[in-house]
Amino acid sequence: MTLAKEPIAQPIQRSHTAGDFAREEVGLANRNSGLPLEALRYDVTPIGMHFLLTHFDVPFVASAQDWRLEIGGRVRTPLSLSLAGIQQLPAKTLRVTLECAGNGRANLVPRWQTQPWEYGAISTAEWTGTPLRHLLEKASIAPDAIDVAFLGSDRGFDAGREHNFGRSLKPDAAMNDDVLVVWEMNGAPLAPQHGFPLRLVVPGWYGMASVKWLKRIEVLAQPFDGYQQTPNYHYRHKREDPGVPVSTMRVKSLMVPPGIPDWYTRHRTVEAGSVELTGRAWSGAGVPITRVAVSINGTWSDAALDPPQGKYVWRGWRFVWQATRGEYVLECRATDANGDTQPVEAPWDSVGFGNNGVQRVPVTVR
Amino acid sequence: MTLAKEPIAQPIQRSHTAGDFAREEVGLANRNSGLPLEALRYDVTPIGMHFLLTHFDVPFVASAQDWRLEIGGRVRTPLSLSLAGIQQLPAKTLRVTLECAGNGRANLVPRWQTQPWEYGAISTAEWTGTPLRHLLEKASIAPDAIDVAFLGSDRGFDAGREHNFGRSLKPDAAMNDDVLVVWEMNGAPLAPQHGFPLRLVVPGWYGMASVKWLKRIEVLAQPFDGYQQTPNYHYRHKREDPGVPVSTMRVKSLMVPPGIPDWYTRHRTVEAGSVELTGRAWSGAGVPITRVAVSINGTWSDAALDPPQGKYVWRGWRFVWQATRGEYVLECRATDANGDTQPVEAPWDSVGFGNNGVQRVPVTVR
Repeated sequence: MTLAKEPIAQPIQRSHTAGDFAREEVGLANRNSGLPLEALRYDVTPIGMHFLLTHFDVPFVASAQDWRLEIGGRVRTPLSLSLAGIQQLPAKTLRVTLECAGNGRANLVPRWQTQPWEYGAISTAEWTGTPLRHLLEKASIAPDAIDVAFLGSDRGFDAGREHNFGRSLKPDAAMNDDVLVVWEMNGAPLAPQHGFPLRLVVPGWYGMASVKWLKRIEVLAQPFDGYQQTPNYHYRHKREDPGVPVSTMRVKSLMVPPGIPDWYTRHRTVEAGSVELTGRAWSGAGVPITRVAVSINGTWSDAALDPPQGKYVWRGWRFVWQATRGEYVLECRATDANGDTQPVEAPWDSVGFGNNGVQRVPVTVR
Repeated sequence: MTLAKEPIAQPIQRSHTAGDFAREEVGLANRNSGLPLEALRYDVTPIGMHFLLTHFDVPFVASAQDWRLEIGGRVRTPLSLSLAGIQQLPAKTLRVTLECAGNGRANLVPRWQTQPWEYGAISTAEWTGTPLRHLLEKASIAPDAIDVAFLGSDRGFDAGREHNFGRSLKPDAAMNDDVLVVWEMNGAPLAPQHGFPLRLVVPGWYGMASVKWLKRIEVLAQPFDGYQQTPNYHYRHKREDPGVPVSTMRVKSLMVPPGIPDWYTRHRTVEAGSVELTGRAWSGAGVPITRVAVSINGTWSDAALDPPQGKYVWRGWRFVWQATRGEYVLECRATDANGDTQPVEAPWDSVGFGNNGVQRVPVTVR
């Protein structure tokens, strides 16, 4: 494992397109898993329905016994910790909603060719681990440290650069008591695909910050320049822009598509009468949701909000619709305590990050 | 829930294509989950990595307490059974490899537009339940019965026909002691997406026979004509052929792609030297695997077979490759005890069922 960049070694054939989807995009959609939207009904996403975005391969770890987490770089006391040693530190459990930064990318026109998420890259889990700060305090960060890098054991190429997946946080963000080094998900040991035996969970941020299969923490006197920190995961209007780093989640909401689906088109058919529409809304950095509005063919009304379930957790909402025969488009739109509201049209982004445009659900009422 | 067919109510816009993938195909690939091929390493697929093909929505079942399984039609004693009642019957646990009948569909040219599986719709789990025959013996099948239909609680449209997902078995197949009514997977209660609280598992058959969210068993004096029995799940060379019903799995093998991947293309890079290639091979109806051969750029050698793990379970294989720098295509090909061998080129099928053509893995050795 290394922080050094490697020369470009793989051909790159990707572009913006408004057309049909390439085989590579479909291959990624088959490997990676979205939440089926009907599972928005669960407060905590059941194991196996939580969305999954795996950049390289899921590492095969037969046993956690030999796993070591190395902490080095600009620290006074470099450490090599076993899982059992880490599990002796003070533990806590946090319920956290995570969204992939690329969620909604496939709804942009044109879109960048990569994992073609529509709406499903969003889920909630209960994570058990120890605050990262306990580890950093044990290692004692040197005064000249300005960045803390986290490296997973998953390795591969992206845009021709070979690297272990890696991300960083500034020291003050890393010392936040809610940033966890995690070994349990929903009360069970981490599943292999969620980072067994050890991962980071950074509440309030898009998912890329929550590094899986955590092998090394490197404290740095200069900004971390791994591929997934920069150039990747930046908002850019043009490919050549320097860009703005992707960080906390934007305010957003989704609804459970009502009625029953068509297999291929997923078009919904709903019985006329009283229909309870339900869904979830969330924002980033622990900012509360204050309002969700629902639109029936362009007429907006306020939904009722369920009680909050935690600082970093999506909030349930519900709205009773008196549905009469016809064709409809349903929408939902959330506002947070900062006064930020979802845009009706998604902001265009070069790689399709941070798409929080309103969801549209066409339904036939019969 | 009804066995009756409903009139066509949804527009159908699907075709054969050799081109890029439609938005609907990508939507299905996002909802449904393939096994990431590196997870072929696990004897039993960890929860959350088992492939998933959900025709309609995953039903939301808050508690199993009110769930009833109805058994009716041509029986002497119609039954309405609780989950607790079924769990008092003699239980057994079977390790079973299941493959989706449409696995490999996206590798055909042209392909039918539906869930675009490449290789990943294959997994192995340990299923705990009671042999179906105990339930059928309790209900006592009438002498004129010629088919046994199984209906799930999942409902929707396909090709304009509204129906609950349903499949049937002939009475002698249904009475096989290894056909199970299941409530546990890998030692835990069924997850919602795998059929909570109750499902059928039909070992040796493609996955469509293993009806999830099992609500009703209907014993029939005529052949079951639900959409998923016919016209769907038939091998056809032309759309208008009457077709041959899809039933047991065809002989097949897959390998764990060696080395490390490129994020977008998944192209593999391998270090020169001794490389152990591993994978799995399986057939249908409990027929054992007798041989796996591996090809390096067209030169075939026999792989070593791991010990068998059960009648219905994929068999591990391994082959040590002395890899030298260059570009390669790796292939694997299984033979079963019936003497059936995978075809080098996949047999073309109108809806892409039963594709057991050999896998090809391009790799760069450096």
